[in-house]
Amino acid sequence: MPTISDRMQAMPASPIRKLVPFADAAKARGTHIYHLNIGQPDIETPAEWWQAIDNAQLKVLEYSHSQGIAPLRKSISDYYKRLDYFIRPDDVIVTTGASEALNFIFAACMNPDDEVIIPEPFYANYNGFAIASNVKVVPITTHIEDDFALPDIKAFEKLITPRTKAIMICNPGNPTGVVYQLEALEKLKQIVLKYDLYLIADEVYREFVYDGEKHASVLGMDSLEENVIVVDSVSKRFSACGARIGCVISRNAEVMGAIMKMAQARLSPPTLGQLGAQAAYQLPPSYYEGVNREYNIRRDFLKQALDAIPGVLCPEVNGAFYAMVRLPVEDTEQFCQWMLESFEYKGATVMMAPAAGFYATPGLGSDEVRLAYVLNTEDLAKAMECLAEGIKAYQAVRAESTAG
Amino acid sequence: MPTISDRMQAMPASPIRKLVPFADAAKARGTHIYHLNIGQPDIETPAEWWQAIDNAQLKVLEYSHSQGIAPLRKSISDYYKRLDYFIRPDDVIVTTGASEALNFIFAACMNPDDEVIIPEPFYANYNGFAIASNVKVVPITTHIEDDFALPDIKAFEKLITPRTKAIMICNPGNPTGVVYQLEALEKLKQIVLKYDLYLIADEVYREFVYDGEKHASVLGMDSLEENVIVVDSVSKRFSACGARIGCVISRNAEVMGAIMKMAQARLSPPTLGQLGAQAAYQLPPSYYEGVNREYNIRRDFLKQALDAIPGVLCPEVNGAFYAMVRLPVEDTEQFCQWMLESFEYKGATVMMAPAAGFYATPGLGSDEVRLAYVLNTEDLAKAMECLAEGIKAYQAVRAESTAG
Repeated sequence: MPTISDRMQAMPASPIRKLVPFADAAKARGTHIYHLNIGQPDIETPAEWWQAIDNAQLKVLEYSHSQGIAPLRKSISDYYKRLDYFIRPDDVIVTTGASEALNFIFAACMNPDDEVIIPEPFYANYNGFAIASNVKVVPITTHIEDDFALPDIKAFEKLITPRTKAIMICNPGNPTGVVYQLEALEKLKQIVLKYDLYLIADEVYREFVYDGEKHASVLGMDSLEENVIVVDSVSKRFSACGARIGCVISRNAEVMGAIMKMAQARLSPPTLGQLGAQAAYQLPPSYYEGVNREYNIRRDFLKQALDAIPGVLCPEVNGAFYAMVRLPVEDTEQFCQWMLESFEYKGATVMMAPAAGFYATPGLGSDEVRLAYVLNTEDLAKAMECLAEGIKAYQAVRAESTAG
Repeated sequence: MPTISDRMQAMPASPIRKLVPFADAAKARGTHIYHLNIGQPDIETPAEWWQAIDNAQLKVLEYSHSQGIAPLRKSISDYYKRLDYFIRPDDVIVTTGASEALNFIFAACMNPDDEVIIPEPFYANYNGFAIASNVKVVPITTHIEDDFALPDIKAFEKLITPRTKAIMICNPGNPTGVVYQLEALEKLKQIVLKYDLYLIADEVYREFVYDGEKHASVLGMDSLEENVIVVDSVSKRFSACGARIGCVISRNAEVMGAIMKMAQARLSPPTLGQLGAQAAYQLPPSYYEGVNREYNIRRDFLKQALDAIPGVLCPEVNGAFYAMVRLPVEDTEQFCQWMLESFEYKGATVMMAPAAGFYATPGLGSDEVRLAYVLNTEDLAKAMECLAEGIKAYQAVRAESTAG
């Protein structure tokens, strides 16, 4: 029997999805589950999205242009113009979600065994995309006690080797909710120019920055035209995760040429998703404000509720819709599984993502979880009550088993 | 300025798409173009496809399961049952087109520098997917004079090295239209068992086999459960190329486990496409028969028209909707460009794919083109008349320039 590749043997299964069988079993028992484990918003996809698909009245569902349909790339360019970034439609390649964008970037920019430095904890799937291209992820650790602030330049420099090819950030951060402001970006600028690196920024949560703060994109930094590659997506912005529409944005013509080759090989991104996205990108600023307001309320609510649970540490969360939270338990993988397998409160339980899978350094994050506040405050209230009761019950069970 | 990866520097741009700027210029001059260059059918996507999307009345366009939605995988399993192949829904992973399926398979089954033997001419994008995973394509040449028949076992054995990991076929063949029957598959079976290889079969044109012949899938061969991996797609079957829905099928649990990890990393295939595909896979046999009949008529028409053009060699074409055709010109890249740049007949011209891009061996195919018979016979008739006139005119121009 032929054997699978070394890279796939090395690739971990998704840490978020490991718990799915336990959740399925809980549902089969009739237990309601509050899903704080995955970034699937409950917000409705804009009516304009569906209308655009209806209006097209397609008879044949044809391939689109490999770069993405021109009206969508124009809409994306216009969207950036409103944010004061000058991006030509030709600086955009539409991709099948941010996932494909990341795949393309790793394959286009890095050779096997090249290294990319990423602040950890980071979005676990970055690992998967890197492994598929035989690229090595080098983590630089950030800490819950510092609200996951970007490390200083010296810490980065310690990790730079002749194989270092890029620094990659997620801003606002999944899973941390951290927002890097200009000062942090300036640090990165110094490093990438000094060592001639790519600066890859996943900015899919750009519109989710709270308290009236503005998001600073790496697209606005001068002297970085050849270094900056941005990953973007409609998934969270327009609550259209299932459309699988994202994009790569760069002013580096060589990089875009390389990515275009891959884009042509896979023919085109999904056609219907592009029609919907094109319409959504023409929504007025009030759309973004409305969604932002809703998540700001949820963030405030979650933080307050978590701060009220004894032993829980919730850092500052300024963006995205995640929080990395320390729980008063030793091993959150066990605790999260126990919540699904052995606990319910008022007929329900809470599903969370154990944090260890978001750290590349073994041993880190074992007492943390990632919570996605993608539910309305009424459901969040119930989920937080359930979590508080769960922690109490779990501590009691643990104390008993230790005593025994 | 950081440099792009070696693999992308090595990757050729799509041979089919190189001519696009010349086609755009011709259109801008008002010349109508008969597109025989790309496999985009003119057949309508089934009404049931659109109805299924309408009926779902989605409010939130959510992620689906990474493996693909269960009802679609069930429909695919049922489809295979009608063809007498027993495939469990869990033997299916839904992908973003056959393109993603091929990407997953190369990354999951092969290490960098591993080799896959593919009969040439082959679908040019196989190269792109192989390069992205640093896999080496080893071509085994087939010939227009033999109607592109599969080479014998000895020819394969000459190419096998310690790095050979797989043999890959496209059956029915893009770009050749060749159909491998059981005898050819038995040869492959002997080789893959003897050398412990994967047998990867791209069968997306399965329903396009003509003259009442039946398609033989590698899924029906015994003793190959651990070796066989099939790539499938709804793109051509239901004229839904823009949906980007395909799948990987294998009974090798280890391979499927490895591919699942990648499937989870990219989250999910497009949701709306899965809804449409699920409905389409429930269409009765009469649907396939109707489409097959139409392409059979087109194939007959095309072959007859080509045989009537002096100096043109059109081999037997038994499947898919392509023909690799020898033209009485020296260099089809130049000829195809000339047809777009310098020729028109009754206000129109013909766009074709030069064949050299489908061969991995340099120098082969320079007098061949791939024609996709994706137009109705009325348009095909005009296209063939235009091609015949074009060849005459080109030969006259060439004779003149040689004489001069």
